[in-house]
Order: sequence, then structure tokens, then C-alpha cells
Amino acid sequence: MGDFNESVILDAIRRHPAGLSRVELAKATGLSAQTVSNITRRLIDQGVARESGKQNTGSGKPRTLLEIVPTCRYAVGVHLDPAVITCVMVDLLGTVVGHRSRRTPSGGDTDGTVADMAASVHSLVAESGVDAERVLGLGIAAPGPIDASAGWVVDPPELPGWGRYPLRERLSEATGLPALLDKDVTASVVAERWAGAATESRNLLFFYLGTGSGMGLVVDDTVLRGVSGNAGEVGGLGAACSTRTLVDEAVALGVLGGEYTVLDPADAQRGLERLALLAAEGDAQADGIIERLAIRIGRGVCAAGTLLDVDTIVFGGPTWLVLAPRLLATIEPMVARSPFVRATHPTAVLSTTLGENVAAVGAASLVLDQALSAQPRSLLLG
Amino acid sequence: MGDFNESVILDAIRRHPAGLSRVELAKATGLSAQTVSNITRRLIDQGVARESGKQNTGSGKPRTLLEIVPTCRYAVGVHLDPAVITCVMVDLLGTVVGHRSRRTPSGGDTDGTVADMAASVHSLVAESGVDAERVLGLGIAAPGPIDASAGWVVDPPELPGWGRYPLRERLSEATGLPALLDKDVTASVVAERWAGAATESRNLLFFYLGTGSGMGLVVDDTVLRGVSGNAGEVGGLGAACSTRTLVDEAVALGVLGGEYTVLDPADAQRGLERLALLAAEGDAQADGIIERLAIRIGRGVCAAGTLLDVDTIVFGGPTWLVLAPRLLATIEPMVARSPFVRATHPTAVLSTTLGENVAAVGAASLVLDQALSAQPRSLLLG
Repeated sequence: MGDFNESVILDAIRRHPAGLSRVELAKATGLSAQTVSNITRRLIDQGVARESGKQNTGSGKPRTLLEIVPTCRYAVGVHLDPAVITCVMVDLLGTVVGHRSRRTPSGGDTDGTVADMAASVHSLVAESGVDAERVLGLGIAAPGPIDASAGWVVDPPELPGWGRYPLRERLSEATGLPALLDKDVTASVVAERWAGAATESRNLLFFYLGTGSGMGLVVDDTVLRGVSGNAGEVGGLGAACSTRTLVDEAVALGVLGGEYTVLDPADAQRGLERLALLAAEGDAQADGIIERLAIRIGRGVCAAGTLLDVDTIVFGGPTWLVLAPRLLATIEPMVARSPFVRATHPTAVLSTTLGENVAAVGAASLVLDQALSAQPRSLLLG
Repeated sequence: MGDFNESVILDAIRRHPAGLSRVELAKATGLSAQTVSNITRRLIDQGVARESGKQNTGSGKPRTLLEIVPTCRYAVGVHLDPAVITCVMVDLLGTVVGHRSRRTPSGGDTDGTVADMAASVHSLVAESGVDAERVLGLGIAAPGPIDASAGWVVDPPELPGWGRYPLRERLSEATGLPALLDKDVTASVVAERWAGAATESRNLLFFYLGTGSGMGLVVDDTVLRGVSGNAGEVGGLGAACSTRTLVDEAVALGVLGGEYTVLDPADAQRGLERLALLAAEGDAQADGIIERLAIRIGRGVCAAGTLLDVDTIVFGGPTWLVLAPRLLATIEPMVARSPFVRATHPTAVLSTTLGENVAAVGAASLVLDQALSAQPRSLLLG
């Protein structure tokens, strides 16, 4: 979809949902009025942008505003989580237009699971009524570690049987769509920038709390991936924050009965919900488990936020959705009191607005990001 | 110095000191043979690159190799450290051609110190015999926190009197050179990429151990700076690893006498050298202090290396230079045993090859990096 300057213009329009005039576009991008005029003409001709109204500037003639045509292109996202598989279809602004989810089959039948995913993708696209040509591609969010260049998942701890599995290639073959693979946490931070709580921030971290935990990182407007695509791993902190650890701790302390013992990742969510209910009803031991979790998370995000000098921290994932207000009550003041935050700049602490779909929306956003964002390397085809 | 494609070509030539043929350049950059040919002609005409010999390819005619002309441009770097001020002049490959250092005046006479720095810069340039037109500019490395956009140092803990001081502007005025300001740790990681131990790595962290400690970060070939230019702060770990903390601990344990009590940052280095000597002579308590430091550092770099998925960790700074072999003996196996490193890819653990000049060379490299590296934002002047 065009060259670097075009991507820069598209990015600017996309990030201003209220619309932007050509004069504002020139100012925001540093491009000349003539270049902006040529590119916006081309985008309108292609059906990617449209004129959306007039802006009264006080003096002079009113300026025409431009906006993205969200229905001109779509992307599909698949999130493979150890407990749930979620598929979404989103428009060019990352808005969900279709959604399916099902429990992840246990037993490690990889090819069978891929066939199921492909069937979900097919029906999502078919039910949307969208012309298949408008679907740019398929993004996949998977638990780490991954091998990003090969497109493999590499022995994710909670997905036995998925060792070094070529998920990107298999799902691309089964759906006929070009596919991208990234870690679930990285996809989630991309979702927050496209369609979530942090579309304005150029420096943010996303803390994903679920079956496993980890961070998605954006610094200086760049999504960090690292040597092997595994940036965002939090080592022992991830294990200490997993749903399984929480529920196991509650069972060990007698706060939850033995019937909540975690055998399968999907069990853990049931135990977690019970634990949250007990805490809300005033059970001090249950609340203590959650408070200790909050402190661990707070220390982790303060350290990472300081290391990376971010101004925004967003939380999400299945565990977060159950415990959000209780965790925020502890974490928000920890961040505000952090010496570095106090010395330099305030840091916003937010909950995802994308709910349980965040990683699947993120997977789809990977496709949008690649197709539409300003990618310097695309310049090299001289 | 030209456009994006030109920068990409320069980058590729610079990173292959043995020389690169036009065919190899086209392969390495993805640019067409015609584009490579046009750009290399221009670079040769400008005196920035030159033909350096022939490469025998076995079949066909030998290929002409290209290399940078290191003496075509220079940059100056100033490192303001609480103990020492170091000024260097480097050529286009980052090689030091002149060097001065002096003890940092205590008492917070900022304007007087800047006048001293400017005098050092003037004599360095004059003594080098280099035409002033060939000096691209001046880079400054300062302890954090900084305000990168304003060009200020902001109350660095060990530099009383330097609160919110417009160092970039003042030193630019005093020298007549365009100036850039960055944190010492960020400058150091830039030095390692230009002229140091890690010119090949696209994902590395530099751990600076000195009066203060912190990290310089490069992920996906991008130097991370964050919202305010303060990426790389390590919070409590930095304080726990400072020279002052080490010497204070040694005095408190009776390993060093009270005469080593740290009053001024320059004292700390003297105490540290004594501590290193005692440990080398077999003093178990002295060695214990250094071992505990190594473990703190090892944990910190394992966590950060895992979070950022780097393949290279470089150490430097005045404390490192005194203790390097002893610290490496503990840290290297910690990194190798780190679960994430074992699961994904090996990580090299290195000592800087730039010695005590690393941050000053880094400061100069900031100028080279801005003038010569592929900077996508430069494309926006359409």
C-alpha cells in the first residue's frame, strides 16, 4: 500500500479520529503542502481516505477534514492461548466486526487445532459479507517463546505438544491468507496502539496477566521484538504472576478447597474467579494473596517503566479482567511514588479497553501495522 | 549528508572494515545495482568513500572493494562524569585521534566548568591539525536524569549544583559547534556500535559501572531513549552498584580503613582500587564484597537481557575497568545458565574495548550517528 510518505500521512490521519485538515497534516508530518495534497488525492481515489466535513478556522475559508474509510480493508487475528482460542475480524481502524472463541483442545493435537482455527477464520470472513479481496491477511498471537523468523511456537510451558511447531506456515496454508506470527504480549501492545487505550503514546508497556504473564514494549514509537522475537519475557516474575501460581497458593493456604487444584489451564480461571469473589466478600487471606500479586506486578512495572522511560502502562489479559480494580488500587500509587516517575514525568496507568479480545485484536493489528505503518525498510527497494 | 539510501550504503560500508564490493552492497542493502553504483560514485566524489583494492571472486573479473575514508570527517565528544571530564576527537570510524581528561571541579561552578570544557575542545581541534570544516559537531555525555529535548542535565545525584542546567546550549555557544546531549550510558552503547566490541550486534545492552550505574540499550538496531531521553535507568540497582556504595560497605566492614571514607566522587575510585588489590591478594571479605556486586549485576543483566531479547551484553565504566576479570568470572556463567538464554539463543558477555574513553567516544559517536546513520525521519522533508 504505497510508499513511506504515504504511510506517514495514513498514520497521522488514523491517529486523529476527529479528522485532520491538509494544513494540519503538513504540520504534523513535516511534508510540504504539495506532497500532502498529492498523497491525499491518491488515498481518496483508492478509497482508503475520505473527506469527512469542514473545520471552521475563524478567519479564511473553512478547511476540509480527512478521515480513514475503516471498511476499505480488514484483517483477521487469531490468539492461541493455553485456555482459549479467540478469532476476530477487524476493520482498518482495528474495530472488531466479528468474533469467535472456544476452549483450547488439550492433548497437543496441533494439526487438528489448526484445522479448527482455519474453519473459524473462514466462517468469520464469510459471515461478515466482506469481499475476500479486502482482507489484507492473518495475524497470529501465541505464547512465548517463539522463533519469529521461522514462524514457530517453541515449547510454550502451558501448551504441551506444541514444541517447535510451524504455526504461521500451517495456518497460512489452511486459510489461504498471508500470515504473521508474534508473541501474545507483543500483539497486545500493538492492539493498544491501534485501537485501544494508548493510541497517543509513543512509549508504553503492556503487562499481560493470564495463563502466563509478560510485557509488550513500545519505545520511541517502535515495537520492540529483539533478536528472536521474544522481547517482553519477565522470567521468574512471569511464573510468579501466572493464574496457576495464584490458585495453587490459595489452595495451599486453604483459601480455596482442593477441588480448585489446577490440572488444566482453563481450570485456573475458575479458581481465580472464586478467589476474587472471596476477597470482595472480605476474606482477608484471599485479599492478601491478591495484594501480594499486586506488589509483585507493581515492582515489575516500576522497574521496566524506569528502564525504558515510558509514559504509559496498560494492563490486560484474563487475570487482569477479573482483578482489575483491586490490583489498580495498589499498583497506581506504587507507580506514582516511584522515584524515577516523580523526578521526570508522570506515567499513566490504564486498563485495556479491548477486554478479552486484546491479543486477538493485536494479532489482526500486526497485519494492519505492517500494511499501513511507516516502515523505513520498505524504502530499500530502490 | 544525503538521503536515506545513501545512509544505508554508508552504514553497510562502515560495518565491513575489510571492504565491500558493489555487488555485496546491493545484496546487503536490497538496493538495485544501478542505485548502488550511483550512490557510491557520489560518495567517492565527495571524498567520503574510496576504492580500497580488488577481490578475487574465482570466476569472472575481480570486484573492486569500497571503504570509508576515515579522515574525511571528525567529531568531538565530551563526557561529564562526577569524577573526571574527558574530551576526545574521533574520525569518521570512531577512532580516537586526540584525548584530554581532568578531574571534575567540585562546588558546582557550571559556567566555569563549561568554559574549561570549551577550552579543551578548542585545543584538541587545533592540535589535531584538522580543518575545522571537517568537524561535524560536538556530542555531550552526561549522568542522568537529563531532559533530552531541552538539552539539560537535571539534578544528577553526584553533581551538586547542576540542577536543570542548559549544558547543550552553553557548550554549543562556547565552542561554536552544533551540539547533542545524551545520557552517558546511552552514549556508551552508541560507542560500542560505532567503534567498540559490538559493531555487529543489532540487540545489545551496555552496563556502565562507575560513580553511578545504568544501561545503554539497543533493540532491533535502534538506540532506545524513551519519553525524556532517560531509558536505561536501573533504579535501586544503580545505587547498589555505585562505587560509593562498594567503598562505603568496605569501610563499614572494616576491610578498608576510615581514611577511604568517600567524600568526593574521585575518592571512591581510590578506595575501589585498594579493595580490588586486597581481594586479589586473597582477602576473603574483600572478595565477598566484589562477589555480591557481581551477583547483583548478573541478576540485573539477566533480567534486562531477557526482557529485551538481546544477544550481546557489554560492560564498561571506571569500576568495571578495575574489577573486570573478577566480575566476569561470576557474571558470564550466570548469563549462560539463565533459563531464557538457554531456551532461545546464546548471549555474548564482553568487556568494552574503549577503556576509560567509552562514554566520550560515545558522545562523539552521537554526532556520527546523526550525520551518517539511516534516519527514517529525515525522509519527511518532502
